[in-house]
Amino acid sequence: MSPSATDADIRAIVSKVRAAGGEAFISRGDRHAVIVLLGDVELFAGLNLGRMAGVLRVMRVSTSYKLVSREHHPERSVVDVAGVPIGPDNFTVIAGPCAVESAEQTAAAAELAMRAGATLLRGGAYKPRTSPYAFQGLGERGLRILAEVRAETGLPIVTEVVDADDVDVVAEHADMLQIGTRNMQNFALLQAAGAVGKPVLLKRGMNATIEEWLLAAEYIAQRGNLNIVLCERGIRTFEKATRNTLDISAVPVAQYLSHLPVIIDPSHSGGRRELVLPLSRAAVVAGADGVIVDVHPAPETAKCDGPQALVGADTDELADSMARLAEFMGRQLTSRQPVHLVPSGARLTA
Amino acid sequence: MSPSATDADIRAIVSKVRAAGGEAFISRGDRHAVIVLLGDVELFAGLNLGRMAGVLRVMRVSTSYKLVSREHHPERSVVDVAGVPIGPDNFTVIAGPCAVESAEQTAAAAELAMRAGATLLRGGAYKPRTSPYAFQGLGERGLRILAEVRAETGLPIVTEVVDADDVDVVAEHADMLQIGTRNMQNFALLQAAGAVGKPVLLKRGMNATIEEWLLAAEYIAQRGNLNIVLCERGIRTFEKATRNTLDISAVPVAQYLSHLPVIIDPSHSGGRRELVLPLSRAAVVAGADGVIVDVHPAPETAKCDGPQALVGADTDELADSMARLAEFMGRQLTSRQPVHLVPSGARLTA
Amino acid sequence: MSPSATDADIRAIVSKVRAAGGEAFISRGDRHAVIVLLGDVELFAGLNLGRMAGVLRVMRVSTSYKLVSREHHPERSVVDVAGVPIGPDNFTVIAGPCAVESAEQTAAAAELAMRAGATLLRGGAYKPRTSPYAFQGLGERGLRILAEVRAETGLPIVTEVVDADDVDVVAEHADMLQIGTRNMQNFALLQAAGAVGKPVLLKRGMNATIEEWLLAAEYIAQRGNLNIVLCERGIRTFEKATRNTLDISAVPVAQYLSHLPVIIDPSHSGGRRELVLPLSRAAVVAGADGVIVDVHPAPETAKCDGPQALVGADTDELADSMARLAEFMGRQLTSRQPVHLVPSGARLTA
Amino acid sequence: MSPSATDADIRAIVSKVRAAGGEAFISRGDRHAVIVLLGDVELFAGLNLGRMAGVLRVMRVSTSYKLVSREHHPERSVVDVAGVPIGPDNFTVIAGPCAVESAEQTAAAAELAMRAGATLLRGGAYKPRTSPYAFQGLGERGLRILAEVRAETGLPIVTEVVDADDVDVVAEHADMLQIGTRNMQNFALLQAAGAVGKPVLLKRGMNATIEEWLLAAEYIAQRGNLNIVLCERGIRTFEKATRNTLDISAVPVAQYLSHLPVIIDPSHSGGRRELVLPLSRAAVVAGADGVIVDVHPAPETAKCDGPQALVGADTDELADSMARLAEFMGRQLTSRQPVHLVPSGARLTA
Repeated sequence: MSPSATDADIRAIVSKVRAAGGEAFISRGDRHAVIVLLGDVELFAGLNLGRMAGVLRVMRVSTSYKLVSREHHPERSVVDVAGVPIGPDNFTVIAGPCAVESAEQTAAAAELAMRAGATLLRGGAYKPRTSPYAFQGLGERGLRILAEVRAETGLPIVTEVVDADDVDVVAEHADMLQIGTRNMQNFALLQAAGAVGKPVLLKRGMNATIEEWLLAAEYIAQRGNLNIVLCERGIRTFEKATRNTLDISAVPVAQYLSHLPVIIDPSHSGGRRELVLPLSRAAVVAGADGVIVDVHPAPETAKCDGPQALVGADTDELADSMARLAEFMGRQLTSRQPVHLVPSGARLTA
Repeated sequence: MSPSATDADIRAIVSKVRAAGGEAFISRGDRHAVIVLLGDVELFAGLNLGRMAGVLRVMRVSTSYKLVSREHHPERSVVDVAGVPIGPDNFTVIAGPCAVESAEQTAAAAELAMRAGATLLRGGAYKPRTSPYAFQGLGERGLRILAEVRAETGLPIVTEVVDADDVDVVAEHADMLQIGTRNMQNFALLQAAGAVGKPVLLKRGMNATIEEWLLAAEYIAQRGNLNIVLCERGIRTFEKATRNTLDISAVPVAQYLSHLPVIIDPSHSGGRRELVLPLSRAAVVAGADGVIVDVHPAPETAKCDGPQALVGADTDELADSMARLAEFMGRQLTSRQPVHLVPSGARLTA
Repeated sequence: MSPSATDADIRAIVSKVRAAGGEAFISRGDRHAVIVLLGDVELFAGLNLGRMAGVLRVMRVSTSYKLVSREHHPERSVVDVAGVPIGPDNFTVIAGPCAVESAEQTAAAAELAMRAGATLLRGGAYKPRTSPYAFQGLGERGLRILAEVRAETGLPIVTEVVDADDVDVVAEHADMLQIGTRNMQNFALLQAAGAVGKPVLLKRGMNATIEEWLLAAEYIAQRGNLNIVLCERGIRTFEKATRNTLDISAVPVAQYLSHLPVIIDPSHSGGRRELVLPLSRAAVVAGADGVIVDVHPAPETAKCDGPQALVGADTDELADSMARLAEFMGRQLTSRQPVHLVPSGARLTA
Repeated sequence: MSPSATDADIRAIVSKVRAAGGEAFISRGDRHAVIVLLGDVELFAGLNLGRMAGVLRVMRVSTSYKLVSREHHPERSVVDVAGVPIGPDNFTVIAGPCAVESAEQTAAAAELAMRAGATLLRGGAYKPRTSPYAFQGLGERGLRILAEVRAETGLPIVTEVVDADDVDVVAEHADMLQIGTRNMQNFALLQAAGAVGKPVLLKRGMNATIEEWLLAAEYIAQRGNLNIVLCERGIRTFEKATRNTLDISAVPVAQYLSHLPVIIDPSHSGGRRELVLPLSRAAVVAGADGVIVDVHPAPETAKCDGPQALVGADTDELADSMARLAEFMGRQLTSRQPVHLVPSGARLTA
């Protein structure tokens, strides 16, 4: 649709298509709305949609992921998370504890996150765990802790949702929903997350090809949400020296195929603290739009993934490296300053 | 608990544990109920649970999957699906179309399934598809078609559920719930399926280790349901000549670690019709408790996975081979006759 | 070439091609010789080779493996190893110790091998070991031990060669050369083994696709030797419950693509004694032409791979199962009797 | 041995150990010689070796790779290739054509290599090819072309050896021997390369764990050669968007385990020109000691791997990025100047 198309224009098209027995999905990007039609191409051709109000162009698409593909959207997208941009001009650090364990631990981790240069706070309230006997997260109580820490620090929140039924409650508290590696093909969850209207961080399945990852993003996009950030977090291979094998090539490949931002999770891919810095540096210069990093005030007592969390001085080195390498790449490290301009909630200075 | 323990005995223990701040999960097997306690071991020791009514034994467990482990349950289990046994004395064929497309196609496929020696009918009403633009199944209408075909043929139904919210409606129509490879770590779905009380067919994740597969089964078991059948359906490797790589060794390994029945899906692992027979034969003599096979009356027009569906005479050969090799292994091919002899709704004893 | 072509006919063609700047490779099968030409197709067209004596047909080939492909050789081949056939009408058991450690151990292992139904004795004199500090085999002394045991038992010998420079000495003692998984793409070794004139057992690389495996066989074939037996021995995947993942589907797939016999190594793929029987049974009914199995009189003191070697009564069960399942598949278990009836040096017809 | 130990000191120890029935391997590094003893530890204890002339320390080692391990050699090594250092203070670019095709093509590629910042010229004269019908390299003629281009440009030569029998002829012309991914466990080749006295570039097997890679290096080291550079070139995974999956984490992991330099091959891992720059940048900041890059004056006509070769302006960008990122890492981009200042044949000290 053209940038000037109205909601009424869009509804008119959708009605016409459905009346003719087709299916129509609306997705709104930052400048355009896109309507994807599914059904009989001959039938659609007979509808003369190109003559309708607000229509910029009608085209027949062929790639299997249409909305997230770069083919028809050559410009790379910026995803805005409560004022924090993730996209081609910035490098954005997301940091926080793997799991929210208590208000104190989360607040202390948020301090570390800011020291690491983070402008978004990550933290898990709902934890998908391989074993049913492992710590499963604090649930809604964890969400409230995150919201409190956001109020204190001004850091918007990224948190995982593991069940379609929890999407509403998580979206109520969070600024960005994370879909984890084990749920990348939980299609009900993808659709629910796509429908709720908050930006989504979509982790690559540990065994998913890049194409399958983009098709998973398409499930979200199809529900009308193009505010998706892709996150490479390591794939499963025969190598056991690292927890997973970071597929660094996935950054330029996914950016070539899709207009969506792509970030890296160096903590879960390596699984070891000493790999976080080298892999984060590699992420910046491979062209990633950000990193998401585990930090923990006391990793030795962490209920989840302590061995990979950054501590103390590591965070200073991360902040410094990310800023200098982002500059090398012609990007700016996303900083917390702009946040100062908004009164609501009063956010902190970097 | 001892076989003679009453529901009141069980409730008494659960109350006592919860009052003390612990967590208790009840699982009912064919002879015993098992209560798994989670929490502080010292605290539990102080409760003197061994003295309570109905308690057979209190033990501290250590393997990560306790309920499905063979360690404390050396005898291999029989899972009863509406009168059809799956377990060590039988070899059970499950067959049907990948997707339910229409009443006619499903009825014709059920004929083929019976010709193939099947005593259970498979068919997908809800299809998890990698692409959001692929056929997603007929949903509840598909379930009703399956129920009609069951009424005509007497074949109990196995069908996939892809969303925790659909568990109730699927359980209402189906005799066994299937959880697919992409959902093996969809923990909300595992728990919902575990709670609804129908037998569950748990496919191995295409990238899951055998240990992770058993831990996923443990999620179901923990909700009180030990009627779980494990299904190996091929893992993802570098080899591209087959759709997936059937891990035939997973049959004896999983049976060594767990008391649950293990079956093989030769259709999805190979992805090619001509591999179904050799892989099915291999399954029997590797010790599998059954196979689940795609059949389709007209594979060339199938909406899903046509190239791997058995047709016509292949089904006769499958039935014949399975019967003869099952006998070689000291098992009996599960036969359909008993189903016809019992009044509708009644169940056979294994 | 036609079956009646003479050596002079073949030489005439080779000379003509080489004189014209092309390259020609001769391979002799059991009925035909095949000459593969490499070079400029236009140039070859001008030579009018179809008119030359002994030429049956000239064709332009396109698959990347020409000589081992089933495309131009639809009949499945029989490889004759000192009178023992490996091919579609038989099921052949090869057994012996992983490594030759002493004359006594080898003789005792040969007894076990015969008890297991073996008609060929395997045993490593040259061992390729991941660590330079592991036992590397007895070398030529090991070959002499094998030859002595052959003299006593009548079992022809299969043994590994790991270096192109050793091919002659190994071929002098052995009846069949084995090329191991780590050397599947050691092209110098493949060519040397192809040139020496003894049958070759080519193990699949643990990371090789089936296509790469057939191309490796093509290297041997190109040196004039079509007496090649392919051996699937497990591939490397993420699963760690087994040493490797036996790719049972590789049997029908490789047999569909190539006319060469295909056998299975259940010992190295599973890496555990208790998997050898189920995997061997699976091999027979998946259509394999044989198995190669580790046996050891005292596995607990074995210098190599003790945990996977069959012992005592296991071997009886293997022999019995292989015979009965071979019969099920319309094959005959290759038996040792004929070997004793022929004068030393003479060979049986397949 | 102490730095002042003489050859006679070393011989004395070796004799004593062998006389006692043990085995001794000598390896000479840049400062120390190390003698590794294999055999009965009790027996060695009785020899009182610590008292012998030139002995610095006697220790019982336990890791499976002793000579290349960082455990007993905490300082990272510098490998000197005809005056060009590869090690912790430098970042060294190796570039050239995948295969030597002609004198003109090689000279033009060498120009490009220098433009890319290379101080070492790579180029294959012997090519290991998956298909026997693919271009196999010019062999010795290729080596002579490389030597001529070295004479013109001053660039020392890195070239692959694929057969133990070719090691001598390759070592005669080359400054560094490359062992390719398919030969990483060709133990005869590793030993021959270790014995000939030239530095060795050891590529990781595409399916090899990091531990197996270090054990392969140990085979070379055990023959007395510690001038080994490790090269990560991508591993085989399920992902098909790239030729292989570059395991960027292998750089810090291998450097943590071993004192040997580690470089990256961004051309063979990605298999696509547009991935070479991002992966090269990632290599520098992950801590790699260099890169080895394909360049070709006319990739569209290349006989091998054209699609991944850098051309024209890409090489300028590579040189510039490598220099700036090396500086960021506190290293210096190895420069060509010194090579011109020394008389032919002489070598610089690192």
